[in-house]
Amino acid sequence: MPLSSDQKAEIDQQRAEQRPTRRVVAPDLEEVLYEALPVLDHGFVRVIDYMGDDNAVVQAARVSYGRGTKRVSEDRGLINYLIRHRHTTPFEMCEIKYHVKLPIFVARQWIRHRTANVNEYSARYSILDKEFYIPRPEHLAAQSAANRQGRDAVLAGKEAERVFDLLRKDSELVYEHYFEMLNEGTDGAPLDPERSGLARELARMNLSLNYYTQWYWKTDLHNLMHFLSLRADAHAQYEIRAYADVMVDTLKRWCPLAHEAFLEYRLGGTALSKTGLAIVKRLLAGEPVEQKTSGLSARDWRELMASLGRGA
Amino acid sequence: MPLSSDQKAEIDQQRAEQRPTRRVVAPDLEEVLYEALPVLDHGFVRVIDYMGDDNAVVQAARVSYGRGTKRVSEDRGLINYLIRHRHTTPFEMCEIKYHVKLPIFVARQWIRHRTANVNEYSARYSILDKEFYIPRPEHLAAQSAANRQGRDAVLAGKEAERVFDLLRKDSELVYEHYFEMLNEGTDGAPLDPERSGLARELARMNLSLNYYTQWYWKTDLHNLMHFLSLRADAHAQYEIRAYADVMVDTLKRWCPLAHEAFLEYRLGGTALSKTGLAIVKRLLAGEPVEQKTSGLSARDWRELMASLGRGA
Amino acid sequence: MPLSSDQKAEIDQQRAEQRPTRRVVAPDLEEVLYEALPVLDHGFVRVIDYMGDDNAVVQAARVSYGRGTKRVSEDRGLINYLIRHRHTTPFEMCEIKYHVKLPIFVARQWIRHRTANVNEYSARYSILDKEFYIPRPEHLAAQSAANRQGRDAVLAGKEAERVFDLLRKDSELVYEHYFEMLNEGTDGAPLDPERSGLARELARMNLSLNYYTQWYWKTDLHNLMHFLSLRADAHAQYEIRAYADVMVDTLKRWCPLAHEAFLEYRLGGTALSKTGLAIVKRLLAGEPVEQKTSGLSARDWRELMASLGRGA
Amino acid sequence: MPLSSDQKAEIDQQRAEQRPTRRVVAPDLEEVLYEALPVLDHGFVRVIDYMGDDNAVVQAARVSYGRGTKRVSEDRGLINYLIRHRHTTPFEMCEIKYHVKLPIFVARQWIRHRTANVNEYSARYSILDKEFYIPRPEHLAAQSAANRQGRDAVLAGKEAERVFDLLRKDSELVYEHYFEMLNEGTDGAPLDPERSGLARELARMNLSLNYYTQWYWKTDLHNLMHFLSLRADAHAQYEIRAYADVMVDTLKRWCPLAHEAFLEYRLGGTALSKTGLAIVKRLLAGEPVEQKTSGLSARDWRELMASLGRGA
Repeated sequence: MPLSSDQKAEIDQQRAEQRPTRRVVAPDLEEVLYEALPVLDHGFVRVIDYMGDDNAVVQAARVSYGRGTKRVSEDRGLINYLIRHRHTTPFEMCEIKYHVKLPIFVARQWIRHRTANVNEYSARYSILDKEFYIPRPEHLAAQSAANRQGRDAVLAGKEAERVFDLLRKDSELVYEHYFEMLNEGTDGAPLDPERSGLARELARMNLSLNYYTQWYWKTDLHNLMHFLSLRADAHAQYEIRAYADVMVDTLKRWCPLAHEAFLEYRLGGTALSKTGLAIVKRLLAGEPVEQKTSGLSARDWRELMASLGRGA
Repeated sequence: MPLSSDQKAEIDQQRAEQRPTRRVVAPDLEEVLYEALPVLDHGFVRVIDYMGDDNAVVQAARVSYGRGTKRVSEDRGLINYLIRHRHTTPFEMCEIKYHVKLPIFVARQWIRHRTANVNEYSARYSILDKEFYIPRPEHLAAQSAANRQGRDAVLAGKEAERVFDLLRKDSELVYEHYFEMLNEGTDGAPLDPERSGLARELARMNLSLNYYTQWYWKTDLHNLMHFLSLRADAHAQYEIRAYADVMVDTLKRWCPLAHEAFLEYRLGGTALSKTGLAIVKRLLAGEPVEQKTSGLSARDWRELMASLGRGA
Repeated sequence: MPLSSDQKAEIDQQRAEQRPTRRVVAPDLEEVLYEALPVLDHGFVRVIDYMGDDNAVVQAARVSYGRGTKRVSEDRGLINYLIRHRHTTPFEMCEIKYHVKLPIFVARQWIRHRTANVNEYSARYSILDKEFYIPRPEHLAAQSAANRQGRDAVLAGKEAERVFDLLRKDSELVYEHYFEMLNEGTDGAPLDPERSGLARELARMNLSLNYYTQWYWKTDLHNLMHFLSLRADAHAQYEIRAYADVMVDTLKRWCPLAHEAFLEYRLGGTALSKTGLAIVKRLLAGEPVEQKTSGLSARDWRELMASLGRGA
Repeated sequence: MPLSSDQKAEIDQQRAEQRPTRRVVAPDLEEVLYEALPVLDHGFVRVIDYMGDDNAVVQAARVSYGRGTKRVSEDRGLINYLIRHRHTTPFEMCEIKYHVKLPIFVARQWIRHRTANVNEYSARYSILDKEFYIPRPEHLAAQSAANRQGRDAVLAGKEAERVFDLLRKDSELVYEHYFEMLNEGTDGAPLDPERSGLARELARMNLSLNYYTQWYWKTDLHNLMHFLSLRADAHAQYEIRAYADVMVDTLKRWCPLAHEAFLEYRLGGTALSKTGLAIVKRLLAGEPVEQKTSGLSARDWRELMASLGRGA
């Protein structure tokens, strides 16, 4: 369960209050504001705040005094144009802030995106909760033989059982010892009044990388789409993709036109190299092209043919 | 006049509309939202949007589920503590967006602050208005003899007259020729239907650095305070300080507790070097200290004594 | 002439000295180190320092203890792979520093690339030289009628003559008045010993945007390629493209494999949107596709057909 | 042991080669280039590459054509001036690249410094070595009772023994199970040819935060000093301070004048708030000041008095 009843009450209270503002408002995003959208077994994504919407992109691109928008069709055209030609600065004029709960190994991938603001829960200062990630059976994948950075079919039978058993038991064990080293009882009292307890900043290092942490994470619309284009991609590790997928939905609620352009130009398209483009032109002209005469290596040829939906 | 009547109407319309939001609202800042706060002879600062307030800083520092704030006195204490110990990340959780009209030579100083988002009016694409900066008599300062990067007393009499005359006439002249090269009449029609007109991206280079440009500029609370600590400082050039001073007022409306801490720890304080601190300790212990035995150069000694309010 | 004889002597002296180092060395780049590579009428690009080469990219990608490189063919394959899949971080491990002299209006475009380090010559502190940009006749382009941000054919005859005349005379005039306001004679003595002279930080605002400034500019290999992909592109203004073209040559001397991949995947390729890719697939399958049934607007259809080398 | 004999051989080979360069060279840093400077039980810091030195700071500050340096005493004065007045951009003109091996919990603190370039060893792609951090007895500190983020006296006797026992056994256990889930034998062959082995990107999550990772980390001189001012500070966790201390030594070898200024103005000095400065002035004027009339809270008063070397 990602939330305690106290936390739920705090969130409900925030959701209940409304105030008037002169700022731009994104009504569909307001609907889910503060709500914990569940991800994985104990994680969540919560939208805490935002600034701007599709209209703010248009306004910045036009450096206008008023709203800047005209008809929706013109705004859509302008936003598509900006994305297609990588005019990224108007998208930096919108900002969104999330509260995210996520396993530490996911946090370590996520934090590599540097153009963002982060405040993480401090295990130097506080004690981490006993919450760790265990994959669902359908995500317990084998190592890919072909791609050192990929997954293969799902483990099954005895092997799967053994893995679940190890993951669970080790997670339980390291947490038990974490508390023992801290000299913390579950009731908050010291386990042993004679002992001092190891410093929190040291004891935490006994925890494993599937333990959950949480942070506030804030970024602008351009960097959000860049993050999503890498992390909602099929090559991303499933566990971070699960977060990205939920965030793509929040993007749709926030800036529907930017979301549309994002699907069309970022997630859905492809890039052709100079040689790849020359091959496509030759093929379109009806010329037969083979790998050997294409100028591409066998591997690059296969990649190109796959992206064009042709057998090799 | 910084605004045309059309622009005023657009702004009034934006100010008239209010919508409900679940987000944090800063009522004092809402009061001036969209308004053009005048700076210099034709410039302005307009707050277009914002996200968060003092409370968001506290919430991020505590990574809390609800508002995060307790009593005002506790929030003030926490914000002071964060600023004093340079824990800057919670201040990055608030964001503000300005629309600014400013002379190009001011824009060139301003843009050196890289951790911000900018959309500038494009003189490749559009034609600049005929608006240029002429200092008021009390700001027409002579070159400082002592400090190559500073100003001395104000010019007066014939010298001042001559400078005003040159600035005005040259500004008028380069704009007249800008329009002639563009082949633009003031009514929008070509001056000469036989001519093509020079490309806008070239013609603009005839304009002088006192011409006004404008941009949308967005940054977070931490970087805003860093900008203001450098640009509202006595060493900053007067013309950019004029903008910073107006923005300090918007900071006060937005995040009053952060504003208070900013005055106390950034604008109002001083830094002591290792040697400077040793001297202060000796002085406080009643020991006489002179420059020669202080370990400081004559110049550094004078700077230190001045900052401590003592004659050299 | 971009350089005085004193400056040339300083540069020759730097070029003459060699020292031993254990660091990676890029011999082809060493050949032109410190040299002023001319750009436009008074500008230049000088490579002042660099760190790393193709090998450093490979080493970082492999997080290896030694050099990291294997055979050239494997290194080439890895660098191509990294560029193609936008694994950009290994390219951030190389750094290059330039000294650039450029017109102010070009500097204003250039500075928008924020992930770089800059030290600009200060006109608050020092006096600018009398050097301004005048386009060569073949670059004196008319405003494009079709594209508000573009150029058309070159101006000729009387119109060209008049434009040259205006640009030259205004540039001369504003500089003469700059010196008069500064109360500076060309020999360094005051023009008029009775006058104080206007502060440099104010006088500079009378200069026009075609005056030259200069700066040290440093960036990493990834951000250099990003800069070049935008500024060596046909849509960039000619004057900044002239700098980018010279810098592409320095890239080739520095990191020949990255340069090759840059031409293949960045400058030479194209991007297909989701709809564009679907159209290409249909065309390759022999299906006739027309704009009306393509899902693209007329304008996007023309762009796609042009990029595929087909008439509309 | 931080290095295998293969790794040592690779490093020795790199150290043996010297090549001529026209670039600036820092001889004292060349002496330790590529060497593994040991930190903690299995970690190290290696300087892999650098660009510039004190002279490059001076050259950028003066935007000069040649070296830019004059006499050492003038260069020292300029560098001190730049640091004191927070003119940070000239320090960004120097760059340094490290190869660092460090426990994951240290890496998680370190990565919060965003203005740096990083390539980390990938546990999605490769298998981590069996190396984990165990504190030396003198660093096995108890939790501070006064400061939730601090350490107290060192644990001793039975409590210390028990903690060491838990840390070692859990570290051994999670690694054994990591290998079992991967289906990896220590000889590289599968443990069990019938099993597939869990994907590396999943198995790694069973490892604890004291396991070592490694990365290439590159930053500029300004950001290095900022990093060191926070991480070589007494408030930093001991384990990251151990790295910072070694890096301060490399700074001294690289840029001795900047290092001197860093000790004088960053590590050794203190900051006075507006109220604190007023109190110091009153004390220096011989006026008695007490906490109650000082305008400071009891806590801030104690902090100020401590920094001035006075009892409260």
